[in-house]
Amino acid sequence: MCQLLGMNCNTPTDVTFSFRGFAQRGGRTDQHADGWGIAFFEGQDPAGHAAPTDPADPAFGDKGLRHFVDHQPACDSPVAELIRRYPIKSRNVISHIRKATQGQVALENCHPFVRELWGRYWVFAHNGDLKNFAPRLHASFRPVGSTDSERAFCWIMQELAKSHASLPSVPELTLTLRELAAQIAPHGVFNFLLGNGQALWAPASPQLHYVERRHPFAHARLADEDLSINFADHAGQNDRVAVVVTAPLTTNEIWTALAPGELKVFVNGALGDA
Amino acid sequence: MCQLLGMNCNTPTDVTFSFRGFAQRGGRTDQHADGWGIAFFEGQDPAGHAAPTDPADPAFGDKGLRHFVDHQPACDSPVAELIRRYPIKSRNVISHIRKATQGQVALENCHPFVRELWGRYWVFAHNGDLKNFAPRLHASFRPVGSTDSERAFCWIMQELAKSHASLPSVPELTLTLRELAAQIAPHGVFNFLLGNGQALWAPASPQLHYVERRHPFAHARLADEDLSINFADHAGQNDRVAVVVTAPLTTNEIWTALAPGELKVFVNGALGDA
Repeated sequence: MCQLLGMNCNTPTDVTFSFRGFAQRGGRTDQHADGWGIAFFEGQDPAGHAAPTDPADPAFGDKGLRHFVDHQPACDSPVAELIRRYPIKSRNVISHIRKATQGQVALENCHPFVRELWGRYWVFAHNGDLKNFAPRLHASFRPVGSTDSERAFCWIMQELAKSHASLPSVPELTLTLRELAAQIAPHGVFNFLLGNGQALWAPASPQLHYVERRHPFAHARLADEDLSINFADHAGQNDRVAVVVTAPLTTNEIWTALAPGELKVFVNGALGDA
Repeated sequence: MCQLLGMNCNTPTDVTFSFRGFAQRGGRTDQHADGWGIAFFEGQDPAGHAAPTDPADPAFGDKGLRHFVDHQPACDSPVAELIRRYPIKSRNVISHIRKATQGQVALENCHPFVRELWGRYWVFAHNGDLKNFAPRLHASFRPVGSTDSERAFCWIMQELAKSHASLPSVPELTLTLRELAAQIAPHGVFNFLLGNGQALWAPASPQLHYVERRHPFAHARLADEDLSINFADHAGQNDRVAVVVTAPLTTNEIWTALAPGELKVFVNGALGDA
C-alpha cells in the first residue's frame, strides 16, 4: 500500500520534520520505492499578514503551488533531500510515496496529481486499488499516466466542475465531495487526500490517522528515524497544525484513526465541523 | 524583459550547462530577480530505447513532467542550485526568469505555467507585455495568477481544445498554433515557448535566438560565467540538440536570430520544416 501525508495549518509551517520520517518509508523502513511526490501551496504573503481566515471568503487560501515528483525512491532522491533541507513553509501540503500496484514506474504515474479548476490548483494523492471503476470522462480532464488513481481524480474534477459554476465555499465543496466520494467508495480502497490551497479533504477511513498540534506544544519523536523535536521551540501560541497520514509518524503523540463515515475536511489546522 | 530558455533534443540530454549561464541572469548578471521556473518532460524510458521518433506517431514524445517554480531570484534559489547540480535528462525543457512588469512577485505568477489537455501536459513561458488582450475565457482553462501571460496561455489552450477533438499530429498542431499566435501578435511583444513533450514551439521573432548542436560537437563557452564544455565528450554521434533563448548563452557558437514570420517548431533536436 502507498503512503499518504497531508498537512493543513493556520499559519505557514515547514513540513521538514514530518517529511523526514515519511521519506524513510520510501525504500528504507518500508517497501514503497516506486516514486514519490509532494505539493506545497504558498500564498502571496508568506508571513500570513492580513490573509483572510474565514473559509467562506472567496479569497481564502493560497494559490501558488510547488509540485515535486520523482520516480526514484524517496529515501535516495536528490529532490527529497532538497525538501528535507530546505524549509518550505506552507499551510497546505500533500505528499505520497508509491508502491506500484497499477501502472508502471514512471514519472507521469507519481502522485500527487495536479489540475486547475476555477483558477485554483487542485492536488490529489491516493492510496489503494479501485476495482471496476471506469467512469466516463467526457469533459476536459484526462489522465496523462496509466493509474486508476489519476482517472478517479479526473472524474472528481469533472463532477466538481459540473456541480458548481465557480469556486464555492469550503463547506459547499465538502458537501459535493462527500457525494462524489460515496460513489467511488464501493469500488475499493479509496484513501485519498485532496487539497486546493484552502482546505485538506480526506475520506473517513480507519486507514488514515490524524493529529492536531496546538498550544501547549510538546516534544515529538519520529517513528522512522532517531529524531525528536520540541514544537514549542518553533510554533507560536496561536499556531494550529493538523497532520493526516496512513500510519502514525511519531511514537509519543496521540494519533486518532478517522472513524468510518463521511469525508472529513481540515481547515485552518483543525478538523472541520461534521 | 524576461528571459526564456528552451531545449529540444532527439535523446534525453541534461540542461545543466545551459541552465548554469541562464540562472546567472536571475539577479546576478542581469536584472531578472522576480522569480523563475523550469519544466522538464521525461519519458517512461530515460534511455530512449524503442521510443517512437516519428512526430506523426501518437505515442511520440514524453508524458512525465517535472515542474519547478520559485519566487526567489534564480541565482540564489536552493531549487535552482539543485537543478545546476542534479543532471535531469530530458528531451524537452522550458525555463523562464521573470522581471515582473505585470502581476506581483508571487509563486502563482512564476512561469512556466502548466495545464493538461488531451492527456498531455502543456508548458508555456512568455516574455513581453500584451496590451488590450482580454480574450473571453469561456471554457475550462482559467488563470490562477494575475499575469497577462497566463491568461494568453489559457486562451491558447481553450482554442486548441476547440480546434481538435483529440491530440493531433505535431504538424497539425503547428498549423493551428500559427493561426492562434497571429491573433495575439498585434497586442504586443509575444515571445513565448510552448511544449507538450513532443515538440517546442516558438514564434518567429528577432528577439529569440537558437543554436542547433550536432556532430561534430565542439567546445562552448558560457557568456555569463567562466565555464566551458566540450560537447564531444558528452554527446553521441547521432545526438541533436536545439536550444532557443532570448539572448545567446555562449560566446563561441553561432546563434541564429529567428527571422520575423511564422511560428517555428523544433522536433527531435532540429528546426522543423517551414
